[in-house]
Amino acid sequence: MVGQRFVQLLEGHPWFEVTALAASENSAGKTYAEAMAGRWKLSSDIPAYAAGMTVEKCTPDLDCTLAFSALDAAVAGDIEDAFAHTGYAVSSNSRNHRMDADVPLVIPEVNADHLRLIDVQKKRRSGFIVTNPNCSTIHMVLALKPLHDAFGIRQITVTTMQALSGAGYPGVASLDILDNVIPYIGGEEEKIETETLKLLGWLSDQTIQPAQIQVSASCNRVNVNDGHLESVSVKLAKKTSADELKQAFSTFNPLKSLKLPSSPTMPIIVRDEPDRPQPKLDRNIEKGMASTIGRIRPCNVLDWKFTVLGHNTIRGAAGAAILNAELLAAKGYLK
Amino acid sequence: MVGQRFVQLLEGHPWFEVTALAASENSAGKTYAEAMAGRWKLSSDIPAYAAGMTVEKCTPDLDCTLAFSALDAAVAGDIEDAFAHTGYAVSSNSRNHRMDADVPLVIPEVNADHLRLIDVQKKRRSGFIVTNPNCSTIHMVLALKPLHDAFGIRQITVTTMQALSGAGYPGVASLDILDNVIPYIGGEEEKIETETLKLLGWLSDQTIQPAQIQVSASCNRVNVNDGHLESVSVKLAKKTSADELKQAFSTFNPLKSLKLPSSPTMPIIVRDEPDRPQPKLDRNIEKGMASTIGRIRPCNVLDWKFTVLGHNTIRGAAGAAILNAELLAAKGYLK
Amino acid sequence: MVGQRFVQLLEGHPWFEVTALAASENSAGKTYAEAMAGRWKLSSDIPAYAAGMTVEKCTPDLDCTLAFSALDAAVAGDIEDAFAHTGYAVSSNSRNHRMDADVPLVIPEVNADHLRLIDVQKKRRSGFIVTNPNCSTIHMVLALKPLHDAFGIRQITVTTMQALSGAGYPGVASLDILDNVIPYIGGEEEKIETETLKLLGWLSDQTIQPAQIQVSASCNRVNVNDGHLESVSVKLAKKTSADELKQAFSTFNPLKSLKLPSSPTMPIIVRDEPDRPQPKLDRNIEKGMASTIGRIRPCNVLDWKFTVLGHNTIRGAAGAAILNAELLAAKGYLK
Amino acid sequence: MVGQRFVQLLEGHPWFEVTALAASENSAGKTYAEAMAGRWKLSSDIPAYAAGMTVEKCTPDLDCTLAFSALDAAVAGDIEDAFAHTGYAVSSNSRNHRMDADVPLVIPEVNADHLRLIDVQKKRRSGFIVTNPNCSTIHMVLALKPLHDAFGIRQITVTTMQALSGAGYPGVASLDILDNVIPYIGGEEEKIETETLKLLGWLSDQTIQPAQIQVSASCNRVNVNDGHLESVSVKLAKKTSADELKQAFSTFNPLKSLKLPSSPTMPIIVRDEPDRPQPKLDRNIEKGMASTIGRIRPCNVLDWKFTVLGHNTIRGAAGAAILNAELLAAKGYLK
Repeated sequence: MVGQRFVQLLEGHPWFEVTALAASENSAGKTYAEAMAGRWKLSSDIPAYAAGMTVEKCTPDLDCTLAFSALDAAVAGDIEDAFAHTGYAVSSNSRNHRMDADVPLVIPEVNADHLRLIDVQKKRRSGFIVTNPNCSTIHMVLALKPLHDAFGIRQITVTTMQALSGAGYPGVASLDILDNVIPYIGGEEEKIETETLKLLGWLSDQTIQPAQIQVSASCNRVNVNDGHLESVSVKLAKKTSADELKQAFSTFNPLKSLKLPSSPTMPIIVRDEPDRPQPKLDRNIEKGMASTIGRIRPCNVLDWKFTVLGHNTIRGAAGAAILNAELLAAKGYLK
Repeated sequence: MVGQRFVQLLEGHPWFEVTALAASENSAGKTYAEAMAGRWKLSSDIPAYAAGMTVEKCTPDLDCTLAFSALDAAVAGDIEDAFAHTGYAVSSNSRNHRMDADVPLVIPEVNADHLRLIDVQKKRRSGFIVTNPNCSTIHMVLALKPLHDAFGIRQITVTTMQALSGAGYPGVASLDILDNVIPYIGGEEEKIETETLKLLGWLSDQTIQPAQIQVSASCNRVNVNDGHLESVSVKLAKKTSADELKQAFSTFNPLKSLKLPSSPTMPIIVRDEPDRPQPKLDRNIEKGMASTIGRIRPCNVLDWKFTVLGHNTIRGAAGAAILNAELLAAKGYLK
Repeated sequence: MVGQRFVQLLEGHPWFEVTALAASENSAGKTYAEAMAGRWKLSSDIPAYAAGMTVEKCTPDLDCTLAFSALDAAVAGDIEDAFAHTGYAVSSNSRNHRMDADVPLVIPEVNADHLRLIDVQKKRRSGFIVTNPNCSTIHMVLALKPLHDAFGIRQITVTTMQALSGAGYPGVASLDILDNVIPYIGGEEEKIETETLKLLGWLSDQTIQPAQIQVSASCNRVNVNDGHLESVSVKLAKKTSADELKQAFSTFNPLKSLKLPSSPTMPIIVRDEPDRPQPKLDRNIEKGMASTIGRIRPCNVLDWKFTVLGHNTIRGAAGAAILNAELLAAKGYLK
Repeated sequence: MVGQRFVQLLEGHPWFEVTALAASENSAGKTYAEAMAGRWKLSSDIPAYAAGMTVEKCTPDLDCTLAFSALDAAVAGDIEDAFAHTGYAVSSNSRNHRMDADVPLVIPEVNADHLRLIDVQKKRRSGFIVTNPNCSTIHMVLALKPLHDAFGIRQITVTTMQALSGAGYPGVASLDILDNVIPYIGGEEEKIETETLKLLGWLSDQTIQPAQIQVSASCNRVNVNDGHLESVSVKLAKKTSADELKQAFSTFNPLKSLKLPSSPTMPIIVRDEPDRPQPKLDRNIEKGMASTIGRIRPCNVLDWKFTVLGHNTIRGAAGAAILNAELLAAKGYLK
């Protein structure tokens, strides 16, 4: 699913041109259209630019300088290493290298400064890897960043209701999810609990000091195509009001001046209706690149609670890696 | 939906015989089968005993001594008062009188002793009202009671994923919930946050002292027929281990000696699989009268977290009121 | 749902400007945004042009010359008559006047010549009414027209699997359709069986002679947001081949020279994959204005069978009425 | 899914005792509970009798005389042959041998006399194979049999809306079916079109003469757990009335005197409500062993049309094979 989103989102990209597509041995040698036969799951057709391209093997001799990775975690680690060692810039959505000490884990609006880890990383290889977080982490941390800046977050509890496309294809069996919720997604809670600390951590000397925040996640799979919904509570270092919270969310736009092509007009949308955000109504806002927040209200246990929603395969995956690459370009890391 | 469950669950009841059915003016005078035409939503047919009974108006001249109420909150308050004043025992699932100072709000396994409020209540009327909690509160509090007894609960956060039948019929429009989650159920969070304190409170003199616990609830509607799923975290007064928690859940059975007809063999079922409980697989356990708990694990913010599931229109509503009535009978309040 | 589609589809229309919005007494006097609060069900927001407009009553004193009607059948008959008598051109999606002898029932690609009935109709009123067919009829007849022209249709059987949006809002209760199919849609089979004959009939003198075709419909509601899927079998007057059928479908484009703004590039799309069309993948093709056909194969009972899919609230309703109005404009009926 | 239904339905069977469970090499050697870990998809738990049994390999040395087969078609042909050659009676739900000239394809109420083919079959092997039809064929033919007897069927068109469990597990991907209908099930239309003719054929000399009926099927997958719904039209040799049709359906009970343990009280249930049968409401009638018919009405193209529903993994699969075995026992073929 994420690979398909890359192909879709890179169609007509103003800065990047797709010069090679690579996949497993099974697909290598076929055209992309052949390789995707019966497996293309987006409602728009395969972009014309990609349909006829021949799929190549994932070896570091592709005709490109920047590689986007949506590889399965079973193989992503080694392949991405090979590309980075050979000199490629790799923008990866895979989880393997996210927590490596010298690999930036980046959401451009949150911790663009962490890209400086690339200089550390390049001491050991000619290219480098940059990663984006897990799909459920991204939207939560994007939403929390303005609160952390303004009020200091101390504790976070989050219960997610995650969409089917997050499990890939074929992913979740229909018999398992029709008329059901599955209260478990392997490894997901750990990713939220650890990635959040790196993302909100600070770059000190040449390493990231993890944020001093307690994070507890409970992850559930629901019968929704796209869009992860998350019930979040936070404890803050400073007293604040609902209006100040909304103000912090609504004015947050640190990337504005960079004019990155995939940047949303505003990264956080605040809805005032009592029953928003909803996956069906809000996941595609800003072409799937923004997070939507609603139901901001006091929490009897921590301080504040609210609901966050975001598109999991766009801003939560392929769009995240593309935005990271745009940030790399804007900051001069790609030449 | 709850009225239909009453009719279904009371079929062949060993202690109670249904002698009258009452509903709104619209239905009065019709047979129950006529009144339900096109509106009976359970997969089993209308029980034969009820189909031919003539529906009466909800006035306190019904031929019975015990009245079960699944009335809409818009009318339940006054009608239940009228019945109680005329001498009926009322076991109500409606929310109107739950928080009245002299009305017991009861889960038999949790606070059977609160029935003593009936003596207080009877000072002002010849009959009395007993209520059961909201459908999402019942399963959470039933699950929490053994922990509170053994370790002392200080804080609770809960995020619910609630089934469609909880909204009644026609309830949630299909266009609103297909491929969606709705992060809001009007009044539900308040009910969980207040009813829990009364349920876990203690009877002192002639009033209930609310429990000294902080409760924060976030309620969501998911596309599931029956079965509310809840992600719960708790902070406890005492340190404990996962094994001790499981032990507390698994040995909890305070009603055992009463042998109430609708009592489950065990009120709390603990599942060890990583992905249970699930609404589709676990809601009907013990004929829908038990709560199922799984995913017991440490919480980085509070102390422990786990997932609770229960059938919302059986143990969460009609079955709860019937079990309350059975408790009333066993304790000598019905004669 | 259809009214909302009108508002959405008319945004930025090159020929028509929305100058008035009218609805029931309940909504009159409110802004459109207020009237739609909690009821706007499309994933894009209310168009800015409409949000602030004040909703008026449905009386024939609106500031416009062309009126689109998505009125409920309970009131559409009289209101549309009143507008037509007062001089308005009415393009209606409501069923009330579809079968009136002097009211054109039109799919532009199928029977544009039936517009000449307007001259007959105008003998009794200063304005006129033009109607489009039922949502499930439109896509079937659009698909059948090239076959009828080339090979002569004698018999049609159709089994529909219709989307939820066809029932309006709130429409189908979620408890009725989750994990279910409802094998009945009131009045729908009759509409398909009668409207088809008028649409494929011929204008003789001043009346429509119904087509000499036998039509049998079976209608089912399925748990799909948008997109009616129909299994169709036909008996033809002439022997033909699958290739000739495909050829007839694929070359059908009688409106091409008119360049109507809402016309699809091609009204019929033929898919060769064995498992297409599917509502989720194909309903939005050509902005929802085309029908997609697949699974063309011999029928053991009649001659040929295939599957047709189309968007029910776009080409099946609001888009149909707008296309009819564009045809009226192109043919000089609006001035 | 079908294997699990066998295990569930054979619990406490009055005539048969399960003495061995066999499956693929992967499962052999494990207990049944271990082999099913994470794969048991019925809402009731694994029956206690089966949970601890050791799964064996599918070789003809099992400790039993009657073997039920729910094998995958990729291996069923050879394995069933091996068992039949070794002397076992095999009651199979697999498709491989259904159309073999000397293998009975049986629905007990429809063509019990076809069991006489066993004598032919036993000329070439010591044991024998008996098969039941495809899940969608069974319910249609069970419903059509009384009409065929009374009025003579000449033509049948059927459009099916089939449940997910018919595709096995994991089967249909949730991303493929949520908010969708898939208008294709590989091989299914051919099965309905050929099996029907054998089932309604007559035994002449030592072979089955296929019925002289034209059958045309269109098969669709819908987002329903269990229960295949079918829109059927038929042309009959004799004129008849709706009342006579209902009479034929309602009085059909040819197995009554045999008192087979799995026989429904009545094999065909007729519903008069306009919107029945529905999968959610009617699939479990008679423990899933009956077909429900509704919407009996004239067809403009053939003569009559109606809707049939039945449980696809009970009467449509495992229950069918068990009922066949009970018939074998009652007729003296098992000793």
